[in-house]
Amino acid sequence: MKTLAELFEHTLKDVYYAENALTKALPKVAGAVRNAKLKAAVEAHLEETKEQIETLKKVFKTIEVKPEGVKCDATDGLIKEAEGLMEEAEGVALDAGLIGACQAVEHYEISRYGSLREWAKVLGNEKAHVLLTEILDQEKAANAKLTTLAITTINSK
Amino acid sequence: MKTLAELFEHTLKDVYYAENALTKALPKVAGAVRNAKLKAAVEAHLEETKEQIETLKKVFKTIEVKPEGVKCDATDGLIKEAEGLMEEAEGVALDAGLIGACQAVEHYEISRYGSLREWAKVLGNEKAHVLLTEILDQEKAANAKLTTLAITTINSK
Repeated sequence: MKTLAELFEHTLKDVYYAENALTKALPKVAGAVRNAKLKAAVEAHLEETKEQIETLKKVFKTIEVKPEGVKCDATDGLIKEAEGLMEEAEGVALDAGLIGACQAVEHYEISRYGSLREWAKVLGNEKAHVLLTEILDQEKAANAKLTTLAITTINSK
Repeated sequence: MKTLAELFEHTLKDVYYAENALTKALPKVAGAVRNAKLKAAVEAHLEETKEQIETLKKVFKTIEVKPEGVKCDATDGLIKEAEGLMEEAEGVALDAGLIGACQAVEHYEISRYGSLREWAKVLGNEKAHVLLTEILDQEKAANAKLTTLAITTINSK
């Protein structure tokens, strides 16, 4: 990997892997949480994640590469952490812990999409820049929603 | 793990593990990057990380728990990702990739310290809240510095 274009392609495959892994992990999280508002937020983000996968396919199209994921150790680690909580925690620690774990995932994605959309700009790929900014804004909104939920509902119980 | 206090202690051990792991990983990153400003930024953050470990020891003291880490899969994954880049990337892809990897770590920490300081508040642990907010602000500043560096220096080359 030598060029920014190669790094862009590699990282795009990394987030594609991450979003696909999340479509498998989020239903488990939604099933485990006790708070109804949190459950609804996780389910809504699952639907959003599925749409983001479609948007990522459009980004792959701009660089004429077949959409595919590459194993991403960070995503695997983040998901493993959430699974550990589902096994070890209960009560308020489970809800508060899972909301924190979801926010860690959101923050990971915010950092990746932040880099990707800047690289797209430098590479002169305006279409990818716009599509990735769209996803970035969704991830930021999802994270803000979780913060509000954590502060107003979960942590106060 | 049932209570918020138990979750707080567990997550505190998680970030303690993360910061200690970073003191081992950051020198490798500083040695691998080519851009002088980026190298200086990584080295400065290494020193900051060492100070944060001392601050975390003070947080442990507020809950009368001996400072120790618990293995954190997310941190391990994030570091593994950076190590993969150091093996596979060169040239501009290496610098831009490593800056992105560092930002992913910063974002992970921002999410964890964000949760921890809110939990400290709910638990009525004002001292921990202040200390963790201090670290959170440092992580946010470190991330902002990397963003500026990425946009103004690395990506444009």
